[in-house]
Amino acid sequence: MKEYNVAILGATGAVGTRLMQKLAESNIPVKSLKLLASKRSAGKKLKYRDDVLTVEEATPDSFDGVDLVLASAGGAVSKKLLPEAVKRGAVAVDNTSAFRMDPDVPLVVPEVNPDALENHHGIIANPNCSTIQMVVALEPIRKQFGLKQIIVSTYQAASGAGQSGLDELRDEAQEHLDGKKMDAHIFPVKGEKEHYPLAFNLLPQIDVFEKDGYTHEEWKMIHETKKIMLNDMNSGAIKVTATCVRVPVEICHGESVYFTVDDAKDASREKIQSILNDAPGVTLKDDPKKQLYPQPIDAAGKEDTYVGRVRPDQENDNAYNMWVVADNLLKGAALNTVEIGEELVKRDLI
Amino acid sequence: MKEYNVAILGATGAVGTRLMQKLAESNIPVKSLKLLASKRSAGKKLKYRDDVLTVEEATPDSFDGVDLVLASAGGAVSKKLLPEAVKRGAVAVDNTSAFRMDPDVPLVVPEVNPDALENHHGIIANPNCSTIQMVVALEPIRKQFGLKQIIVSTYQAASGAGQSGLDELRDEAQEHLDGKKMDAHIFPVKGEKEHYPLAFNLLPQIDVFEKDGYTHEEWKMIHETKKIMLNDMNSGAIKVTATCVRVPVEICHGESVYFTVDDAKDASREKIQSILNDAPGVTLKDDPKKQLYPQPIDAAGKEDTYVGRVRPDQENDNAYNMWVVADNLLKGAALNTVEIGEELVKRDLI
Repeated sequence: MKEYNVAILGATGAVGTRLMQKLAESNIPVKSLKLLASKRSAGKKLKYRDDVLTVEEATPDSFDGVDLVLASAGGAVSKKLLPEAVKRGAVAVDNTSAFRMDPDVPLVVPEVNPDALENHHGIIANPNCSTIQMVVALEPIRKQFGLKQIIVSTYQAASGAGQSGLDELRDEAQEHLDGKKMDAHIFPVKGEKEHYPLAFNLLPQIDVFEKDGYTHEEWKMIHETKKIMLNDMNSGAIKVTATCVRVPVEICHGESVYFTVDDAKDASREKIQSILNDAPGVTLKDDPKKQLYPQPIDAAGKEDTYVGRVRPDQENDNAYNMWVVADNLLKGAALNTVEIGEELVKRDLI
Repeated sequence: MKEYNVAILGATGAVGTRLMQKLAESNIPVKSLKLLASKRSAGKKLKYRDDVLTVEEATPDSFDGVDLVLASAGGAVSKKLLPEAVKRGAVAVDNTSAFRMDPDVPLVVPEVNPDALENHHGIIANPNCSTIQMVVALEPIRKQFGLKQIIVSTYQAASGAGQSGLDELRDEAQEHLDGKKMDAHIFPVKGEKEHYPLAFNLLPQIDVFEKDGYTHEEWKMIHETKKIMLNDMNSGAIKVTATCVRVPVEICHGESVYFTVDDAKDASREKIQSILNDAPGVTLKDDPKKQLYPQPIDAAGKEDTYVGRVRPDQENDNAYNMWVVADNLLKGAALNTVEIGEELVKRDLI
């Protein structure tokens, strides 16, 4: 059996620690594991299976002899280091937005477009967290009935901004409960001019604004969905629009998804529920009589994408509403990245 | 000048205290004020302007000599007592859902359909909080360009379930921050079988489920919008669908509103912004460059409905997204109720 020298880039972050955990649980035969991070984190010791590994500073030479890189250390780091890794013979799965729109880089959700891996040139991109869970839920419906339009409103967790985002939400919540002023440094966007509290609040800005009034997060949901489902980031075959909102939740994004199918006559609520029930990576949790529907506190730490509240638009024959929840750090990030690695191994593409 | 004997039914609740405050600030000439509540709250003393008033138990005879009732004590209380008040010559503005769908009862947002008051038979209904802020924002757009379709996803605050809902959210948040199990008794719906924590969570259920898979809150948004805008709760002239989600926010509902206009050629982002800027009861807060958009912590305690993030669907000429935030206890409840009272006084309809 082929075995692989693996490196995790950004090993100490909220996603990085989950990359280690999901790699340990995966089918990827790991010969050796290297933990890479910034200079600041070098020297830290982390447990992987029964070993204690020391985090090393990531430099171009760190990738000598590495077969597979799993990267989640920010876009700038990926942009700089992943081409160096590929130059040294590695295949890299990148969880940042650095290469997602590069036409030579496959953007992959294994349940949706695994074949796109066949054409990789060394780097494979992991989509944005909010995109992944939506396409996992929509792809089985698209396969059966076709899709014409998607209108999504997101309810995104603080951990989308990493461990520091999570910490800020908890600190602010405690400050507010103690009657103190909330102290905001990170949200809505690290490094932006204005910062606003997230605790007990809603922030309709995730990532920076584009010129057309959409945020970059909304832009990603629109164009990544097209690239994953239609292999063309600008395709008009499915119309997509998005409103992305940060909410005071720790882990798991919620999404209110409105979609229009092509084949209205054949589709029904029951058929869509049945398709979702059988779909890979999906758990249907949809029983209003028992008050069963997806909730972030239940889905956190789970691998599946949870779907519920499936129901037709009563005034449009071909349209439906549904509610989608998934762990943004697992299926939205670490798990999908490792699953791409598994698929590369299965297809012998490393 | 005509002066009125006013009674507030449900004076001790989260909305009731705000009814007193907004009545004191209003143009309604108050000759006397009677505070009514359940037996349990009778005897409580509350300040109104410079007076201290004692809460009395509400009975049919409480309404003898009363001209105007402002009611927010729950649907069952309204159903029982408001016909008694009307029998005794009073006009009642009701903030519960008890009479909203009664064809003889006007459902009124003064910025939208004040003329509906002319046909009242003693009871006027105040719409649901989530409906009010949406129609305040959409009506000026409808007047100019017409409306074909509304798709709304809500982000609704805990105080929609009253003071006890607010308390539960704060208690749960503290429990969670202390590493304790969250203790849920109220959400998603008081008296329902299952209860789930709201703190750091999302609950896609507000009010009970209908047979078709929609919640009653969603049903209200759909049919109240039609009754207010089109004077017909079942009109198909505007298609409406809704997904209502409770979020861990104290005060102010957020709404992601997608709408399609009739007159696509003439509409534009700039024109819609300009119309909203001039619209009664609306504050446009929409400057992405300055990161300005409506947030619950800013809008709480304010009277206006805040609108931002206005932008066209890039793939549908006639469709737009926007983000609407308003204080659910004020414009969504107490303020709109008092404004209906003011309009009744202005039109001499009491």
